[in-house]
Amino acid sequence: MIDNLYTALVHYPVVNRQDRPIGAALTTIDLHDIARASKTFGVRGFYVITPYRDQAELAKEVIRHWTLGVGGRLNPSRKQALELIRVADTIEAAVQQIRTEHDQPVVTVATSARRHRQTISPHALKQTLAKDRPCLLVFGTAWGLADELIQQCDMQLEPIAGPGDYNHLSVRSAVSIYLDRLMNN
Amino acid sequence: MIDNLYTALVHYPVVNRQDRPIGAALTTIDLHDIARASKTFGVRGFYVITPYRDQAELAKEVIRHWTLGVGGRLNPSRKQALELIRVADTIEAAVQQIRTEHDQPVVTVATSARRHRQTISPHALKQTLAKDRPCLLVFGTAWGLADELIQQCDMQLEPIAGPGDYNHLSVRSAVSIYLDRLMNN
Repeated sequence: MIDNLYTALVHYPVVNRQDRPIGAALTTIDLHDIARASKTFGVRGFYVITPYRDQAELAKEVIRHWTLGVGGRLNPSRKQALELIRVADTIEAAVQQIRTEHDQPVVTVATSARRHRQTISPHALKQTLAKDRPCLLVFGTAWGLADELIQQCDMQLEPIAGPGDYNHLSVRSAVSIYLDRLMNN
Repeated sequence: MIDNLYTALVHYPVVNRQDRPIGAALTTIDLHDIARASKTFGVRGFYVITPYRDQAELAKEVIRHWTLGVGGRLNPSRKQALELIRVADTIEAAVQQIRTEHDQPVVTVATSARRHRQTISPHALKQTLAKDRPCLLVFGTAWGLADELIQQCDMQLEPIAGPGDYNHLSVRSAVSIYLDRLMNN
């Protein structure tokens, strides 16, 4: 497993069905499912990335309900998961915060259902990363991360594939599978 | 991988937070996420199990919208996924249908976040199953499958675990991880 793994869910810049850059709205079930998977697999923090102030406020309201409010009292395991969530404007802001906390450069790893560049397997990523080196795994909402963001990352993980060529997993499923591959075995 | 794998999402009998048997309401995003993961990993069919007539009708309405209606025209990949869904009253009805289609007994495999009985690993399950033997992987909504249903199945898959003891994945995440483990490698 990776000692200091972080996850990020990006709402801008992502692409739509026509592969054009858009900003996506928050989907609250993403926050729950990805926080629960992150907590299960020992992820240190889960960044919700949106530059839109109203969307950031909505994310914070959901988090407050489940960590400080009645949600957390009714469902303590949900509280534990949502406590992992941090809201940031950009990937750069998230990277800066992680770098400061660990006093080390952060390795950024993009994910996509398509190969945008040379990709690395989860196994190779685990072998490559120096012990304790913080690593941020970046996921896109809508139809996936914009190419420019994937190119800015240090590397891309190989797409998840099954026996056929169907590659339309939900981001909630993709996060879960990548975390299992990276943090188990 | 397993040649003839099926998935089932059970809404009754499942348990609530106090481990008491309940019937759960349909969550439409479960249908989408689990159908997409099933399609990705070559699953033959995805059963939505509910004994409640209004809930079965709701499931069929969602499926119609995405396969025959405007949803499928706007989003053909979603259509391909939701075409896998079949609605049944009980696990027994699903097993009967699969048995008839394959003219072979069906191996039923329960899943849970907890060990209810001796469990089998995904690797061992793949090794054990005779080629072509149909296999139905059974998942529970709410707080998981009722113990009586787990005991009725032929076996239970080992729970998904990370480095800690937190075991509160969403059913959408659990299905995705089990399918990746069973249909890849």
